[in-house]
Amino acid sequence: MKKIKIGIFGVTGYTGIELLKILSNHPMADIIFVGANSNIGPYVDEIIPNLKISKRLKIRKNSEILKIKKIDLIFSCLPGGGLISMYNKVKRMGAKIIDLSGDFRLGKRSHAQWYKSRRNASTLKDFQYILPEINKDKINRKKNISNPGCYATSILLGLIPIANNLKDLEDIIVDTKSGISGAGKSGNLEHSFSESYDNLSTYNVGNHRHAPEVEQLIFKESGKKINLIMVPHLLPIKRGIMSNIYISRKTPFNHKQILKSFKDYYLDSNFVKVLETGLPKINDVQNTNMCQIGIKVMPQNRILLISSVIDNLTKGASGQAVQNMNLLFNLEENLGL
Amino acid sequence: MKKIKIGIFGVTGYTGIELLKILSNHPMADIIFVGANSNIGPYVDEIIPNLKISKRLKIRKNSEILKIKKIDLIFSCLPGGGLISMYNKVKRMGAKIIDLSGDFRLGKRSHAQWYKSRRNASTLKDFQYILPEINKDKINRKKNISNPGCYATSILLGLIPIANNLKDLEDIIVDTKSGISGAGKSGNLEHSFSESYDNLSTYNVGNHRHAPEVEQLIFKESGKKINLIMVPHLLPIKRGIMSNIYISRKTPFNHKQILKSFKDYYLDSNFVKVLETGLPKINDVQNTNMCQIGIKVMPQNRILLISSVIDNLTKGASGQAVQNMNLLFNLEENLGL
Amino acid sequence: MKKIKIGIFGVTGYTGIELLKILSNHPMADIIFVGANSNIGPYVDEIIPNLKISKRLKIRKNSEILKIKKIDLIFSCLPGGGLISMYNKVKRMGAKIIDLSGDFRLGKRSHAQWYKSRRNASTLKDFQYILPEINKDKINRKKNISNPGCYATSILLGLIPIANNLKDLEDIIVDTKSGISGAGKSGNLEHSFSESYDNLSTYNVGNHRHAPEVEQLIFKESGKKINLIMVPHLLPIKRGIMSNIYISRKTPFNHKQILKSFKDYYLDSNFVKVLETGLPKINDVQNTNMCQIGIKVMPQNRILLISSVIDNLTKGASGQAVQNMNLLFNLEENLGL
Amino acid sequence: MKKIKIGIFGVTGYTGIELLKILSNHPMADIIFVGANSNIGPYVDEIIPNLKISKRLKIRKNSEILKIKKIDLIFSCLPGGGLISMYNKVKRMGAKIIDLSGDFRLGKRSHAQWYKSRRNASTLKDFQYILPEINKDKINRKKNISNPGCYATSILLGLIPIANNLKDLEDIIVDTKSGISGAGKSGNLEHSFSESYDNLSTYNVGNHRHAPEVEQLIFKESGKKINLIMVPHLLPIKRGIMSNIYISRKTPFNHKQILKSFKDYYLDSNFVKVLETGLPKINDVQNTNMCQIGIKVMPQNRILLISSVIDNLTKGASGQAVQNMNLLFNLEENLGL
Repeated sequence: MKKIKIGIFGVTGYTGIELLKILSNHPMADIIFVGANSNIGPYVDEIIPNLKISKRLKIRKNSEILKIKKIDLIFSCLPGGGLISMYNKVKRMGAKIIDLSGDFRLGKRSHAQWYKSRRNASTLKDFQYILPEINKDKINRKKNISNPGCYATSILLGLIPIANNLKDLEDIIVDTKSGISGAGKSGNLEHSFSESYDNLSTYNVGNHRHAPEVEQLIFKESGKKINLIMVPHLLPIKRGIMSNIYISRKTPFNHKQILKSFKDYYLDSNFVKVLETGLPKINDVQNTNMCQIGIKVMPQNRILLISSVIDNLTKGASGQAVQNMNLLFNLEENLGL
Repeated sequence: MKKIKIGIFGVTGYTGIELLKILSNHPMADIIFVGANSNIGPYVDEIIPNLKISKRLKIRKNSEILKIKKIDLIFSCLPGGGLISMYNKVKRMGAKIIDLSGDFRLGKRSHAQWYKSRRNASTLKDFQYILPEINKDKINRKKNISNPGCYATSILLGLIPIANNLKDLEDIIVDTKSGISGAGKSGNLEHSFSESYDNLSTYNVGNHRHAPEVEQLIFKESGKKINLIMVPHLLPIKRGIMSNIYISRKTPFNHKQILKSFKDYYLDSNFVKVLETGLPKINDVQNTNMCQIGIKVMPQNRILLISSVIDNLTKGASGQAVQNMNLLFNLEENLGL
Repeated sequence: MKKIKIGIFGVTGYTGIELLKILSNHPMADIIFVGANSNIGPYVDEIIPNLKISKRLKIRKNSEILKIKKIDLIFSCLPGGGLISMYNKVKRMGAKIIDLSGDFRLGKRSHAQWYKSRRNASTLKDFQYILPEINKDKINRKKNISNPGCYATSILLGLIPIANNLKDLEDIIVDTKSGISGAGKSGNLEHSFSESYDNLSTYNVGNHRHAPEVEQLIFKESGKKINLIMVPHLLPIKRGIMSNIYISRKTPFNHKQILKSFKDYYLDSNFVKVLETGLPKINDVQNTNMCQIGIKVMPQNRILLISSVIDNLTKGASGQAVQNMNLLFNLEENLGL
Repeated sequence: MKKIKIGIFGVTGYTGIELLKILSNHPMADIIFVGANSNIGPYVDEIIPNLKISKRLKIRKNSEILKIKKIDLIFSCLPGGGLISMYNKVKRMGAKIIDLSGDFRLGKRSHAQWYKSRRNASTLKDFQYILPEINKDKINRKKNISNPGCYATSILLGLIPIANNLKDLEDIIVDTKSGISGAGKSGNLEHSFSESYDNLSTYNVGNHRHAPEVEQLIFKESGKKINLIMVPHLLPIKRGIMSNIYISRKTPFNHKQILKSFKDYYLDSNFVKVLETGLPKINDVQNTNMCQIGIKVMPQNRILLISSVIDNLTKGASGQAVQNMNLLFNLEENLGL
């Protein structure tokens, strides 16, 4: 079988670097292009010192990909608007695209509300939102993929097994904490060491783009319109997300039943582990493509806590993107992961 | 006015050290005894290198306090059971006691359920639980004080202004994170650097002693029996607590009204600051005796988030203990703080 | 005695904030002006949430100080070039100035080599470099003060007691590590949390401005021209410096003698503590104006290690600036510190 | 080719876990036994949540290995004395042993001075100290291997290319910092989060066991008796070592020449990268088996700084142990690494 010829946009960002690390160990990946907006010129292994890669790849301008004749797949690790600005030209190259930004995640109306990047309606049709554990059976191998957001991944994997049991318009509280690499390579003062270290702060409370992303997929999969109350935190570590999902109910929750529904849902999953007892910690998944989920029926049995942890750069971004690549190219879902 | 002659039990623990630092700047405090269970012999400033104290105090065995003739106040920073084991002898000295452990916080039935330390019923009568912002008006200057717990302080200060509006048996979710000094000087592997660093984990979920402590005071003050759903985390910083309190309601919350009720409640408070907008971060209160509270009515107006931050070693322990000392001895509440 | 009327330039930077915290507890300080380049308008306690200050001070543009009639002292916490650009106008106000930048630390030739900021020769004459423990006896109360650098303070305090024993042109290796607040409020990627956290890196190796600063004062005080080999590190903590100073000699070092020379030198010092045994750690001095020094004659007695720790924001900047204020205004050196 | 049947002692410590992670990706490794002193009973993937291992392995008592019939290789990750206590029995099994403790690193006289563990002279003969980049050509495939220490690895790799140029009895200063996992799973208070975090401290200054280890190998390889002045630090990160090696000389150092000697020495090395310019940082090697070395001739050309970084758990322990396994079993040196 022939290797997949791959190009990467935005290779010098944290998700780009992580993607490169994963792909350089992937038996079917042949990286032939790495692009960036700055740091043009040097080889990637000069910029990313702990990369182990046999091939020497020069960092080129993203737009230089157009000079390449044969390419099968492009990963875009660009921030919002980056891929859109060159999409029409890139489309003509005929390669599949997996986009890690938020640009193609939301439907028309939500997108206009939550994102500034202007998207052409026809462009949106080229993309499908795939979170493998949830909707890989619906994958269309002729379409591009919009890769899920990091918070959204951790929350969706925690919610989906019981989505059918949710009520319409139910309020679901998610107290969620992310390592600071989630903000990307950032020169914002709030992401500086001296401000973030030895601290904990909330941001975009009740107002984070990943909330409509979760609500949208829950609706598509279960028909339930939920109301996600999302409280994100800047956690003073580099990598990892813990999402605590709280669901209230008048009728008592039954731990056994709920645990069973989770275990059944993830029975064949390579990347989701449901804990028999206890709740997971962030260390348990760092530097892996795993999601770990713990379940706790709280005293009085009226509140259910689902605690879901992932590494925001792997399962929350580049690992999941490679998982999506595997599915798109009909490879084993966990190849190279 | 004569200075207060003070003894400290357990001076080498984190709350003992913090107390010593605060008292060494207090104009009315005359520390005459510092005791410990280990590290007996050296001067405190040899053991605690960044202490600025004019007086040279040798660390003695806690029990040696009995040799002292005239003492006005004893702070006990011992872990659970420590003070109880020597209480009868100490009581005869006639000094007031402020106990920072959990031993005298809960009423009879709850205590038996949550604490192993055996307490004499008559002993309990000697103590009153005082969280100054809430019940300082009820202080009895002839009694000892049981100082509130750190989590409990952060949660109670966030709940009390609207306690009267709570329903009976209401579920209140508190997702709360504490710096690791909250565990004291600990040789437990889970509190080691290599296990706690770069991590986030939950513990005692739905099963933390500070939950009944909160429920008890809310009941005393408002007559409401609430059900506190408490989810504590080990946060990889040294000092600081953030408690996110979530309250649900069918009838919409009104931000202005709630904010007003908080501002009214803390109008004359030296140590609680209610934010007009936004939510506080842990940095805002570290190394101070302040509590900062932010309020956010979440989208759809059915869920209220109250976010409360304190430093667990100051307002959550030794700072509040000095505040209680000031009240007990009829001094300005914020003297030396 | 009348309070000192004080203005602060650059109050929103880390040294400005620290200065404000110290001065708000200083019995002789009356802060009447706080200036900044950005964040103009709000009160300082709105910007600096954990500040305890009784007076409400609005942040104004630095240049608005010129509208003030009577002012005794200006602290400039501006970065290099900031004070110089407005110096002539400020000078006419007749206030003393304590400058925390590097602009007035070096003599003419070194300055041109190490700093880009252009300084007028006549301006330099208005300033004196005072590191109190070393040359406070030479203070001229009619002149301004150039406050020493953070690394330089830690190194000079470790070197000065034996400076007379140094050889001319001796190589002195200093392996020194600083918390990241030393870089100021920085939007540089290398000072971002995700880059600095869980890391250790060197920078400006053999090429740091504080090396000539140390060499200059050692020369002035002892007549010895040393060659400081300085290796600074970005240490992943917020506050604190540890400087390990290595001195080689053919004739064996004698621990007792050296310790005695250090103890003698700092006999009356309020802020330098020489350890009898062992070496200090950064925790020992954080949030204090102390320098702690440990001495170790290494095996074979041919190499002497002097390990010196300070808090870069207090003794390395704002605490020392207040110490200098006390000296300049004939107050007790440790007043308010 | 048949896979190597492998047993691991001390699998639940940090080096044991790391070894397991590496070996579970190694194409020639067949782990058939994992032992520990505590945590006996569960499967390793229950204890080590982020382990990806296809085989389910129960943790057994170390001594149960004696029940196994056919085993090719034992890795001992036990602390000092652990392997010695069961060595005679284990020896009879006929398997090769790679020991990661310090028990078989030093010659007779040094061992008695630096280690308490009592070693039989005949036992020592069964072991050879192999640091692959330095002496793999001398490997005896019939003998066991004593795996180098973490600090020693970082220092030796930085010193060896110029060892022949060193003078006899030369003083070599090494200011070295290690992440706290170097202390193993430790319940010591000094390794607790609250003591180590936000801190930097030195320990075993001029008195660390890895100094004689370095001196011994340098002597064996170059005939030079050097005097290693080693100053270790507890660095508040989990993984990584930076060793700054300072060498003084009267005759000027030449950067080009030295760089060439390093590049020549490591020409064919898989795991050592010599930087053309600049000095490495710890992030550059974390979670890899790489050593990165930077060279800087300091101003005046009389002092040479060699800065060497490794990950203490991989190149400093388990990664290097697998490298040694590859060599012992005649596999490609970098297989599975």
